[in-house]
Amino acid sequence: MAQKFTTREQDYSKWYNEIVGRADLAENSDVKGCMIIKPYGFAIWEKMKDELDKQFKATGHSNAYFPLFIPKSYLSKEASHVEGFAKECAVVTHYRLKNAEDGSGVVVDPSAKLEEELVVRPTSETIIWSSYRKWIQSYRDLPILINQWANVVRWEMRTRIFLRTAEFLWQEGHTAHATRAEAIEETEKMLDVYAKFAEGHMAMPVICGLKTESERFAGADETYCIESMMQDGKALQAGTSHFLGQNFAKAFDVKFADKEGNLEHVWATSWGVSTRLMGALIMTHSDDEGLVLPPKLAPIQVVAVPISKTPEGLAEISAKMNDLGDKLKAKGISFKYDDDDNRRPGWKFAEYEAKGVPIRLAMGPRDLENGKIEVTRRDEKTKEIHDFDGVEEFIERLLEDIQTNLLDRAMKFREERTQKIDSYDDFKLKIESEGGFFLAHWDGTKETEEKIKQDTKATIRCMPLDVEKEEGVCMVTGNKSVGRVVFAKAY
Amino acid sequence: MAQKFTTREQDYSKWYNEIVGRADLAENSDVKGCMIIKPYGFAIWEKMKDELDKQFKATGHSNAYFPLFIPKSYLSKEASHVEGFAKECAVVTHYRLKNAEDGSGVVVDPSAKLEEELVVRPTSETIIWSSYRKWIQSYRDLPILINQWANVVRWEMRTRIFLRTAEFLWQEGHTAHATRAEAIEETEKMLDVYAKFAEGHMAMPVICGLKTESERFAGADETYCIESMMQDGKALQAGTSHFLGQNFAKAFDVKFADKEGNLEHVWATSWGVSTRLMGALIMTHSDDEGLVLPPKLAPIQVVAVPISKTPEGLAEISAKMNDLGDKLKAKGISFKYDDDDNRRPGWKFAEYEAKGVPIRLAMGPRDLENGKIEVTRRDEKTKEIHDFDGVEEFIERLLEDIQTNLLDRAMKFREERTQKIDSYDDFKLKIESEGGFFLAHWDGTKETEEKIKQDTKATIRCMPLDVEKEEGVCMVTGNKSVGRVVFAKAY
Repeated sequence: MAQKFTTREQDYSKWYNEIVGRADLAENSDVKGCMIIKPYGFAIWEKMKDELDKQFKATGHSNAYFPLFIPKSYLSKEASHVEGFAKECAVVTHYRLKNAEDGSGVVVDPSAKLEEELVVRPTSETIIWSSYRKWIQSYRDLPILINQWANVVRWEMRTRIFLRTAEFLWQEGHTAHATRAEAIEETEKMLDVYAKFAEGHMAMPVICGLKTESERFAGADETYCIESMMQDGKALQAGTSHFLGQNFAKAFDVKFADKEGNLEHVWATSWGVSTRLMGALIMTHSDDEGLVLPPKLAPIQVVAVPISKTPEGLAEISAKMNDLGDKLKAKGISFKYDDDDNRRPGWKFAEYEAKGVPIRLAMGPRDLENGKIEVTRRDEKTKEIHDFDGVEEFIERLLEDIQTNLLDRAMKFREERTQKIDSYDDFKLKIESEGGFFLAHWDGTKETEEKIKQDTKATIRCMPLDVEKEEGVCMVTGNKSVGRVVFAKAY
Repeated sequence: MAQKFTTREQDYSKWYNEIVGRADLAENSDVKGCMIIKPYGFAIWEKMKDELDKQFKATGHSNAYFPLFIPKSYLSKEASHVEGFAKECAVVTHYRLKNAEDGSGVVVDPSAKLEEELVVRPTSETIIWSSYRKWIQSYRDLPILINQWANVVRWEMRTRIFLRTAEFLWQEGHTAHATRAEAIEETEKMLDVYAKFAEGHMAMPVICGLKTESERFAGADETYCIESMMQDGKALQAGTSHFLGQNFAKAFDVKFADKEGNLEHVWATSWGVSTRLMGALIMTHSDDEGLVLPPKLAPIQVVAVPISKTPEGLAEISAKMNDLGDKLKAKGISFKYDDDDNRRPGWKFAEYEAKGVPIRLAMGPRDLENGKIEVTRRDEKTKEIHDFDGVEEFIERLLEDIQTNLLDRAMKFREERTQKIDSYDDFKLKIESEGGFFLAHWDGTKETEEKIKQDTKATIRCMPLDVEKEEGVCMVTGNKSVGRVVFAKAY
């Protein structure tokens, strides 16, 4: 009955696009590169947002809102920032349309040209630091710990839903500190918030590390990142936390008087995650039947489907199911009872499988008679018949179990596809034939990094933070290396 | 000790701007007409947003997200819509900047001109209905009940923080229905959600009504609104809910097959409230000492200030206050203990008054000795000494009391400034000398409405829904009137 869909094996990229469509998460809009996030997809994003927002507040941050538009000249104030960002932006040049004289619609009114063009924010460091200049005079005004949930625009030529879109949703934290040490502590703290969220809620294992100089955020002294492995063995950068040094403070002339009255430039961080996490979530867990969601981010955690051919049977099953639903809701578990009689049970099973609902319940006349219920877990697609009495306790534990299992499974997947490698010839071969993550020695130079990228399309994903430092020699040049770094092809 | 600020009496408009600054709610940005919502202001907006979002979901709506950009040609598809909106928009014409050849910064890259200009959404009916065309085939796809939280841009020449800004934050609901009756029911239901929120949470009484044809939303068959009275007697439109008929369905060719297989155009509604509500909240309750907040929307509901000259005394007071804080938090009451020793109590009192914290607690050595605590309510600025034991119960009731009192006070204020009027000469006189709302008969014509506006600057705020229909004669023309309408000067 179910339509045949592309498998991961057949075409990973097509499989991804189909999952996005089958689970009704998002679609391309009529505006090139801009996506529409549909209600089911947005409900998952809201769950991510709510949890992250809670964590930001628990670590002392407040939300605020800064303008969508940035004066063009601001972008060039921080020299390396403009190099990294100014290229592909949406530029507002006029502020009025008027009726076309030939009656064909509307045209831009040439008389309404802006004196200075505005850029739709690709990120907000410049507009925010221009405000911080007014907000900060003394050490008493510090730290400033602000986050913003916003839409940003980067004019990408090749877009893919969630992974790379012209407009996307994100949060951007922007903090100001009196000391270098405090700013670095903040940068690391927020990386840790991201890593814990990725593993604890998305069930997605991540490697925490530092970017190499050539992969750093434009304007940062250090970029920390979390990197995760997708099911095709490619890496996805899931979040970044930047130590900005005094770069933006200097560019925007933001100084504070310390306790002794000396004027010093302020230290800065910025950090962000975006709707790209949706792409990461999809590609970490989903299978050929559809989306697989960790229970903590599932808009519907449990769905129940009645199987009955008679109205009387249906009424009895409905009473049982609704009663169970109340018990689950009392435990804070989201529950949907689908008794839509326009759809057959088989159709519903496929539908909720495609949507990644973690647990599916089904009850037919024989189950009813025997006091049983069928419980199917989405992650392993295994089912069992359970006593109806007390099944709510079983479901509660099963949700925890699924959450843990997804993380374990993804961790195992990554471990199996992560290898130490010392020969560049082997590396070139295996990055093509096997993919995955390669822990290799590198001499620390841009030139070697660039050569590897040219030869293999693999990049240094990060210099991991949590590994034993191991000296060695660069697999390419044979020069000294201070420790292995993570190479992979990446999204 | 406190700086002298402008009073409402002296200069209402200046008073408003000062309140926004003193309470640290928002400020103008470097981008003309765009505001920065600061953390304290944003925390109030978040409380509004959370409550409204809960109500939208409770009435069956889901959130989604549509693109920021709208192709220019979309705006002209619905004829009356383009008349109402196309004029003042931010227009994106290019998608790239490049380094200036003279090294002076960045310039727009002329080779990166868009084929069709994009408009930053002033509202999203057009882009959303162009999607609904793909989503709707049959009556089974209806209703669609979607809301979006987003930023929108309308290029206003004269801006005022929160009340009229080029960029603002809002929510826009966009629903699609199979029948006219269902769409009208939805329009009225959402107006009711807004009215209940305004009165129940903002403590702001509103008049529910219909706009006249000339004040209708561009593209609507009917616009419902909630109108509130500010302390200068002027009206503020706080929210609108539009019955869009089949106008957008026709413009975007959205049809559905009914149960009999006939193709019909879909019926639509849209409804929205914005950060303008922040301005309404400020102007409804605040006084010459600063912001006054209803407890349900106050980021800090109770602040406690110790008054002690000795470290020992402070330690004892702090122990008591923190203990009380725990009890209040357990009741879901937000509590801040301010023992910052850089600031004197008097400074703190003025600060929290300016920020509108509903209840202030203070405890000095004598209070400590006598087992007492000073409790001051922000709304009436009255204080009383209460037994420390059990004061948490008193505070809980007092918060409810303040919430009710603010609504009663605002209601009384409005009633005292609302009058029936039958003579146009009296009207012209009193709209200047007394201000407020005038209930008057009007003949239902655009011409009379326009004449009154020209003569007096007053407009018809709405044709109220909840009043007895009373026939009469128009105060201007003497022609027949089917009922009194609300006239006022408005924001």
